[in-house]
Parts: sequence; C-alpha cells; structure tokens
Amino acid sequence: MAADVLVVGCGLIGTSIGMALGSDAEVLLHDVDAHRVALAARRGAGRTWDGLEGATTVVIAVPPRLTASQLKVAQDRHLGRTYTHVASVQSQVQREVEALGCDLSAVVGGHPLAGRESSGPGAAVADLFVGRPWAVCALPGSSEQALDDVRGLAEQCGAVPVELGAEEHDAAVALLSHLPQVASSALAGLLGREGAAGPVPTVLSGPGLVDTTRLAASDALLWTQILQLNAAHVAPVVHALAGELSVLGRALEDLAKEEGSGETGPASDAAARVRDFLLRGNHGRALVPVKRGELSEAFGRVRVSVTDEPGRLASLLTAAGGLGVNVEDVHVEHVPGKPQGVIELLVGSERVGYLGAALEGAGWRVLGS
Amino acid sequence: MAADVLVVGCGLIGTSIGMALGSDAEVLLHDVDAHRVALAARRGAGRTWDGLEGATTVVIAVPPRLTASQLKVAQDRHLGRTYTHVASVQSQVQREVEALGCDLSAVVGGHPLAGRESSGPGAAVADLFVGRPWAVCALPGSSEQALDDVRGLAEQCGAVPVELGAEEHDAAVALLSHLPQVASSALAGLLGREGAAGPVPTVLSGPGLVDTTRLAASDALLWTQILQLNAAHVAPVVHALAGELSVLGRALEDLAKEEGSGETGPASDAAARVRDFLLRGNHGRALVPVKRGELSEAFGRVRVSVTDEPGRLASLLTAAGGLGVNVEDVHVEHVPGKPQGVIELLVGSERVGYLGAALEGAGWRVLGS
Repeated sequence: MAADVLVVGCGLIGTSIGMALGSDAEVLLHDVDAHRVALAARRGAGRTWDGLEGATTVVIAVPPRLTASQLKVAQDRHLGRTYTHVASVQSQVQREVEALGCDLSAVVGGHPLAGRESSGPGAAVADLFVGRPWAVCALPGSSEQALDDVRGLAEQCGAVPVELGAEEHDAAVALLSHLPQVASSALAGLLGREGAAGPVPTVLSGPGLVDTTRLAASDALLWTQILQLNAAHVAPVVHALAGELSVLGRALEDLAKEEGSGETGPASDAAARVRDFLLRGNHGRALVPVKRGELSEAFGRVRVSVTDEPGRLASLLTAAGGLGVNVEDVHVEHVPGKPQGVIELLVGSERVGYLGAALEGAGWRVLGS
Repeated sequence: MAADVLVVGCGLIGTSIGMALGSDAEVLLHDVDAHRVALAARRGAGRTWDGLEGATTVVIAVPPRLTASQLKVAQDRHLGRTYTHVASVQSQVQREVEALGCDLSAVVGGHPLAGRESSGPGAAVADLFVGRPWAVCALPGSSEQALDDVRGLAEQCGAVPVELGAEEHDAAVALLSHLPQVASSALAGLLGREGAAGPVPTVLSGPGLVDTTRLAASDALLWTQILQLNAAHVAPVVHALAGELSVLGRALEDLAKEEGSGETGPASDAAARVRDFLLRGNHGRALVPVKRGELSEAFGRVRVSVTDEPGRLASLLTAAGGLGVNVEDVHVEHVPGKPQGVIELLVGSERVGYLGAALEGAGWRVLGS
C-alpha cells in the first residue's frame, strides 16, 4: 500500500509541502541529512521514509542542479506513479530529465511561486503556498494522469496551479522573480560601499529601503545556481533594467545642469522624461496582484492606541467581537522605549465608522481610520 | 497666547504631524484647500488656523518646490519663533531660504524619513513617525533655540532626531530613499512592456515582486520634484546601480554561453562573479535597520490554524493572555475561498515552546513555530 507523497529533500519547500498537506495525506520524508528529516517530521511534515516504500507522487525538492539526477534515481527504483519537482527553472531540468532517459510520461515539472529569505526545514510553514501561484509545466510526453496528480498536489497545498510551457515559465520568472532578486541585491550591494564621506549613514533608512532590500538577504549560493540555470532569460532583462536606469540617470544629469544654471522648471524636457519614467512604474505596479485587504477598498482600518501590557490586544479583539465585527487582520506597532503601542484592525469598509465610534464610546483611544 | 505648532500644508506629512502631537499640543492647521484642513481637523490633527494666530513652531509641509517661499511668507508675518519644514531635499531649500533673505537664525530644516505610497490627509496616521529617523539640518546661522524646538518636535512625534548637514543629508537620502524609489519604478516599468510572447503573465508574481515594486505606486509628480531637486546626488548613484547591473548582465551572458556549450560548473569564473554580486547584497542588507521583531532572534512565532469566524482571533489571544504570554504582534493569513485561516503570534523566543504546547493542550491546532 503506497503513501500519497514522498518528499525527497527536506528544505524550506519540501518540508512546507509536507506541512501543507498535513493530516489529510500520508507523507514520507527523505533527505541526505537525517537531522533535517527528523526536524521536518517533528514539525509535522510527515514520517521518515524507510528507503523502500513507494508513493503516488514523488516530489524532488532538492537544489535545481541535483533535481534531474535525483528524479532519475527515484524513477529507476519505481518509487512512484508520478514524479515532479519544485525547481525555479524548468527548461534546463526538463532537458536533463530527457537526456538521462527518464520515462517522460510520468514526469511533470512544478514550481511553487513562494518562498522566504530564510531556508531549511526550520523556516518551513504550513501556509507557504496558500493563494500563491504554482507553475505546472507538462513535458511533451507527460500523461494526463501525471498532470492530474501534480495539479492535485498544488491544490492540496492551497496553491493555484498555473499551466504553462517550460520556456514560457522561465521567461516569465526571469522578469517576475529573478530580476527582483537581482535588483534588490544590486541596491543593497551599494550600501556597503564606502562613499567620499565615509560609510553610508544607514540610520536614515526608511521603510522603502527595508522592503526593496529584503530579497537581498536570500541564500547567495542557491541563487547563483538559479541565475546560472536561467541565465539565457535573465541576462536580457537585467540589461533592460540597466538600460532604463541609464536613461533616467542621463535625464537626472540634465536636470542637475538646469538646476545649476537656474533654467529649471517643471516643464523642462528632462523633467518630463523623469515623470514619464515614474508613470511607467505606476502603470507596471498596477499589474502586480497584491494580497487580499492590502490595497482593496473592501477593507478599512481602525487604529487604537493602547498601553503595552499583556492582555490588551485580547481585550480589544474581544471588544470588537462583542460588537459583532469580524476582524480580518491585526497589525501591532510598538513605540520603542515607551509602554504604549498602536493596534490596527482591518475590518470590512462598511464597519469602520461603527467600530471606531463604538470602541471610542467604550473608552478605547481610537486614532482614526 | 501662541499655539504650539502651526502646520502649513495638510497633506500626508502635515496631517500626520498634527495627529502625532495629539492632545498634548495645541496645533493650528492651514492649507490652500479648505477641504483638506477640514478633513485634517476631523481626523484629530488640530484646529483650523484663523489666519492671524501665531505658534511657537511653524512647520511648512508643502511640496519641496514651494517650501522656501511659504516659509518666507510665514516669517514675514512673524507667525512663529521657529520655522522648519519637511522637504525630502535640504540643500536646494536651504539655498532658496537664504536667497529670499529669511532670518536664518530662526530656521532649521527637517525631514522625517517616513511615508506611505498613498498621499493626502486621508492617508495620515498618528504613528507614522514612531521609531523612524527624522533628519534635523541646521543652517549655518541657526540658533540653539530653533534647533531645540525642531529636535523637540521630532521627539514629540515619536521620531528619532538625527542631526546632519544639508549636503550630507542629500547624499545619504539619494542612496537610501531616492534610489530605492527609482529601482522600484524601473522594475515595475518593465512589467508593462509587452514581450515577444505577449503580455507578461503577472499571475506568476510572488511576494518578492510585491515588495520590490511597492514604491512604484508612489505619486509620480511629487517624486519628479524630489528627484529634480536632488538630481546632482541621485544621478551618480543611479549610474552606479546601472553599472552594477550591467556587470552582472555580462556575467550572466557568459554563463548562458557556458550552459549552451556544456562547459558549465559552479567553479566557473562567471559563476563566481554572480555569487560575489549576491554576497555583496547579503552584506549590504545586513546594514539596513529593520523593525523590531522582524529579524530579531529575541522573538519567535507560534502559528495556529483556525476557522474564519468572528471572535476566533480574540479567543486565541485571550487564551495566550490567560497563559501569561505577552503577544508582541499578530499576523492573520486567510485561505482564500475556505472558511479557515492561520494566525501567527509573535512572542518572546523563550515562550514559543511553552505557548505552542499549552495552546495545543487546550485544543488549538498549532502548526509549529
């Protein structure tokens, strides 16, 4: 009797898959490092593979360079009905799988578009894939059965399967995933360079820098592999980004000259080029799907100032619940060094006014929506 | 009898200053648009200025191009003891203030490093400046009194005053604030370009793209002004970023050729250049101060799966409070289309194990730390 899923590679993604499947599925775990298997099992990802047992679907969740060879080993041992992987780059893995002589009818590539800067089984979370896209890339010879199995795996993890070809996938992630990583690393890289005036006073950092450099903390060795495997698609978009920046840099040089000569004005040609660059950014950002509630007009915020002591958050939410308002999300902002903080409650737009007034009436310090 | 603060310009920053000062200060509000004053006053930022009353500190919170002239008008009418502003660029405003013949002893420049993509009094929040740096830039002739007043204003808003010269400020924000904006706009701008295969399938966007393009939603006209005023400092860092990307682009082209010829390997020179680029990013990111709890080892997370019904969040927090654990932050993740979600509780690291076990014992579905 076969298990449902055999996960080969208990890193962030493999362990999160086991945790996401939870008690609804029988999951076997394997890794070259027994400690990682033990940690993944302890975290509820599944149970240790005995080295023999098979599963309906075998998920190869190892670094991309090792993916094809591990898939071949598993298939040669007839461990599953369907074989898939989670590599960030599909074409190269597909070519290697073909070159190794795998039975292609049982293979379908996969790539969950989810991740964190941290890695390993300790960073895994059960809802890593919830609401995220999961690319499903059939090979030329993939069977309907294999395709069904991989689609089902993505859905059971809470993800949204998106079917597309390997080349199409690699071109898309070059722009949507690999280029943001590169841009973030390049930006952060400049912070470490000492300027004419000494080290950069990063104490002046605002939230924009924190967000734009978050990806720069990613695993440099893993990302070297990813960029290497998708180099043919990433190189042109990196050059396109550099080109856009060079054009803007020249417009800014023109503006600096105008400022110096006193001939400046909002109607100057260089200013128009800067404005058009920023407007293209506005347009592009509008194409990015953001999470529920973040930019949606269906939700609004009620902000309450509270003292920073145990139980205040619970009391506030109990009060909101008692008023019949469902709180969709909560954000707590502390005032460093002061025994006070601000709690932001996300609720349906139509409840914002009511909740604010009712909490104020009950003695809470409401700061405005 | 003078009020404490007169805010000229009820946009995001001006209104947030009034709200941050709250009931501890008497704040007067002015704007060319009476509707903005009314909205700011309704949101608790202060009361409408009668056109005559003076204040200890006058804060000019209008777009940078208008800052110096508005400051001059206020000073000519003797409306305050001290005059400050919130312009993102200091040197140019300082030169204009000098050229207009202001009394420099009463003027100190200011720039709170805080903001949101949204603008206007409706987007203002009372804790916008909490824990954020607030640059304080004395002019050559600024009095100690004026410097004290502006430091005090920043502190009363919950910010951390950082004193530095105008040129030093402008060079720092070019790298720390203006370059992230430019990078984000350039990245997002590429998403709107149709590729050979048609529109970019942004359905494959992950959280990295969402974070790195957030700033691209900023007000294009305001940012054109900011970049124009600081063009002399921004142009070289934009070219430096473009240069870093070009170097990486060439390394990726070399890698693509190696991949094609089968001569590839992790030890190749081009791969080493990509790895070093990513490691420089790791190093630079480590210099960025991030918010309390986000990357700190002093805190850990307990994740609980719950049904999505009113009151579950409150019950969970009440349970945590009943166990004597202070919840520092809460994050709620919904499973779209399913009546269930995951609540993440941020608590002191030493309480993670205890809280997880105790909640599990009380019947909650704990997903792991």
